[in-house]
Amino acid sequence: MNTKENKSNSEKVFGESRNVGIDGASQNILIIGAGLCGSLLALRLGQRGYNVNVYEKRPDLRTVDISAGRSINLAFSDRGNKGMKLVGLEDNVKALCIPMHGRMIHDKDGNTFMSNYSGRDYEYINSISREDLNALLLTEAEKHDNVNIHFNKGCKSVDFENTTALFKDYLDKSEFIEDADVIIATDGAGSNLRKSYYLGRKFLFSFSQNYLTHGYKELSILPAEDGGYKTFKNALHIWPRGDFMIIALPNLDGSFTVTLFLSYGEGEYNFNNLTTPEIVTEFFEKEFPDALAIMPNLVDDFFENPTAPLGTIKCSPWHYKGNTLLMGDSAHAIVPFYGQGMNASFEDVVEFDAVLDEGHDNWEAIFKAYEKRRKPDTDAIADLAIDNFHEMKDHVGQAIFQEKRKIEMALEKAFPDDYSSKYSLVTFNEDIGYREAMLKGRAQDKAILNMLADGEVSTALDLTEIKNLKTILDKVTEETRAILEDDEIAGLS
Amino acid sequence: MNTKENKSNSEKVFGESRNVGIDGASQNILIIGAGLCGSLLALRLGQRGYNVNVYEKRPDLRTVDISAGRSINLAFSDRGNKGMKLVGLEDNVKALCIPMHGRMIHDKDGNTFMSNYSGRDYEYINSISREDLNALLLTEAEKHDNVNIHFNKGCKSVDFENTTALFKDYLDKSEFIEDADVIIATDGAGSNLRKSYYLGRKFLFSFSQNYLTHGYKELSILPAEDGGYKTFKNALHIWPRGDFMIIALPNLDGSFTVTLFLSYGEGEYNFNNLTTPEIVTEFFEKEFPDALAIMPNLVDDFFENPTAPLGTIKCSPWHYKGNTLLMGDSAHAIVPFYGQGMNASFEDVVEFDAVLDEGHDNWEAIFKAYEKRRKPDTDAIADLAIDNFHEMKDHVGQAIFQEKRKIEMALEKAFPDDYSSKYSLVTFNEDIGYREAMLKGRAQDKAILNMLADGEVSTALDLTEIKNLKTILDKVTEETRAILEDDEIAGLS
Repeated sequence: MNTKENKSNSEKVFGESRNVGIDGASQNILIIGAGLCGSLLALRLGQRGYNVNVYEKRPDLRTVDISAGRSINLAFSDRGNKGMKLVGLEDNVKALCIPMHGRMIHDKDGNTFMSNYSGRDYEYINSISREDLNALLLTEAEKHDNVNIHFNKGCKSVDFENTTALFKDYLDKSEFIEDADVIIATDGAGSNLRKSYYLGRKFLFSFSQNYLTHGYKELSILPAEDGGYKTFKNALHIWPRGDFMIIALPNLDGSFTVTLFLSYGEGEYNFNNLTTPEIVTEFFEKEFPDALAIMPNLVDDFFENPTAPLGTIKCSPWHYKGNTLLMGDSAHAIVPFYGQGMNASFEDVVEFDAVLDEGHDNWEAIFKAYEKRRKPDTDAIADLAIDNFHEMKDHVGQAIFQEKRKIEMALEKAFPDDYSSKYSLVTFNEDIGYREAMLKGRAQDKAILNMLADGEVSTALDLTEIKNLKTILDKVTEETRAILEDDEIAGLS
Repeated sequence: MNTKENKSNSEKVFGESRNVGIDGASQNILIIGAGLCGSLLALRLGQRGYNVNVYEKRPDLRTVDISAGRSINLAFSDRGNKGMKLVGLEDNVKALCIPMHGRMIHDKDGNTFMSNYSGRDYEYINSISREDLNALLLTEAEKHDNVNIHFNKGCKSVDFENTTALFKDYLDKSEFIEDADVIIATDGAGSNLRKSYYLGRKFLFSFSQNYLTHGYKELSILPAEDGGYKTFKNALHIWPRGDFMIIALPNLDGSFTVTLFLSYGEGEYNFNNLTTPEIVTEFFEKEFPDALAIMPNLVDDFFENPTAPLGTIKCSPWHYKGNTLLMGDSAHAIVPFYGQGMNASFEDVVEFDAVLDEGHDNWEAIFKAYEKRRKPDTDAIADLAIDNFHEMKDHVGQAIFQEKRKIEMALEKAFPDDYSSKYSLVTFNEDIGYREAMLKGRAQDKAILNMLADGEVSTALDLTEIKNLKTILDKVTEETRAILEDDEIAGLS
């Protein structure tokens, strides 16, 4: 996380209604889903003075343990932090964070090496508990009298022409309909509003769901006897194996949440054939011996926890007239490999808030402006996340990519104001959008990889020598500019 | 169409069962949909000796007029012709074809200029009547005792686990279930089998439907009093206007089918605001005066014919185990701008036939091999078709694109064996797949556009001088190679 001071967002006054085109107090907003995006949105709209009702299908996670082997912890970084600054919770969230300064790569022989996320020491990402963060946001939202959160009430369908939603109360089994001025669905990748758009066939709805051939399963490394961490705490651990991998992120209690990413049906070992404790153990002995040594609970975790798919969802339009809007994963679910899913959803709220400041006088104009401004960026992070799947499981183990990384780290360290790698542009340069980060970052990658292949730049040079680095920086800058210009002339950007 | 002789496909013996891994006579194949793809597939599988039953929801188009303002004629070219050769119908189809040697571009002042599709005289595309071609295929298919086509029987749903389909007889309103060894759905963009895959949620089904912001409407230029053509017969006419366009393709009866491609809601004139005869006439007077002069029937056509959306559909997997398979538009519907929709579907049948020749001993292996071989190509033509939308409505009117086209025509003419433009690679080089054509063609376009922008090549040179052209060819070849290599090193291809 970027801890530079004097960010423009931190100067904003929170909890105060500013230039709102639509008067907050007269508007009833219904939010479907009190997950990370829904609870931040509720808090922010509450601060702006709207009457907010949130309906959540699950019980209150502050009173019932509902984690079930899926996404126990998450990567939290600068874009997500913009959302926390917006609502004044930056310091509260910092207390929940475990900094991860880089990837710690584990090879098959158990050797490790650290690959930092940035050459700037103050840039790092964080591991955070989904539950703790969600609880904080819910509690803060509920401090506003104009925000009410209703648990155990699941949305069955949305009538987007009449701006009403049908709910089922899971406690007393009753069904009821709620009316609102606008309905915003933050109900995740399986969104019921999005399903209503698709099945309703009332307008042309572009939609895609694309699954990787791989699924994932959560496992764990438990704390040591003394409550400490069994491997290095401040890193995102990766065991890249070409076609599959495991990763591990630290938790505050000394444990790590481990995730296995593996093909459903291809390769010698896959989810379809890992069916007995013996085969699972054999697979880990062969591929991840150092991890297995600190995972005595592997077999129990493996057979208790579900195997889940990895899908990308894109769609458009996100809104129906001025009645309903999709936000967060319901509009743009992505695979987890850039650690940006939650960050993108929090940035949605920041962007939506900025559109509210533009002073539009009707919801349709607000929703339209929001989608127009936001969709190119969420499309970009979806594509970047798939790129990073290949980078993490495979490229990080290849010589040419390691050389590129070495050069970029040196450039970022020597020229902190003049160079940012693709990873840094996406993760730490939160003042540019994902799309701009993608275009520039991909062009830089292409420039460096090709100059390495052609011998125009080389890690054989002394990279502690500033003169050498300046020459490399100038070449990379010039070649990146040429690549972007060539693409533009060819109509490719 | 490429009329070069001695193509490898024409040497194949048709109507004869070759190396089939699965014995034809013992296998019952149910085909849903007797459109262009379904009727060619039925004919070919009939030739191979399978027991084929085809169910079609509409009446027999040979006895009832069912065209209704949508896709009256189509572009037929070399990839489609591979299918005709496969079943021995090349000569019969030729009789239905009207050659179109290039695009005839109409500017706002009524000036026209011809832009040939290729520098090789023997390469051209054809306008063909959907109805005539479909009728030919149906009649040929029915000549086989082992092929039966059932009309007025619409598929309601497919049970892909039990390989049965539920039909409704539209004449007597009865419903019935049909069983088969395999079911192949050639039921178009709105496929019921694909819907069953999506809604069944029995496996991970990747799926996308993406609509352009533009829709289309069919209009017409009627024959002259003497039965002749009111404008040049052997061209695909285009009136490019940046954000919208009309095109016209000739019919055998002297008429042209005209298609207006226009935004639903954007721009000064759009489908949402063209609501009165006066506005429609004003729009054509202003934008297409020379077309309007030969379209006295414009207003009647406009308000009688439907406005239809332009969508792209991709999905995967195309098959469920060895039970069911999607083919043609049901698997990969594309927008019409490359004139490849029907050609791609016919090529599907050719590719499927080639997989049958590989000697697999079960349908699942056949379906898997077919999708693996075919999907990268159908994904590519989907993307190319969207590119061509922008090229046709806009780029063809821009100077730099016209210069590129001029150079490419000269190269194709001077070096017929050494150069093919992207358009030629896609349309006339039927021995390479769409994906290879796309990658090479896009790199060539990028090379030429950038060399034009940098002044490295120029149409100011005398392009009738072979020495000048050879220099340009060498530069384009080298630059294209470099572009492809750079992309490969960067992992982008």
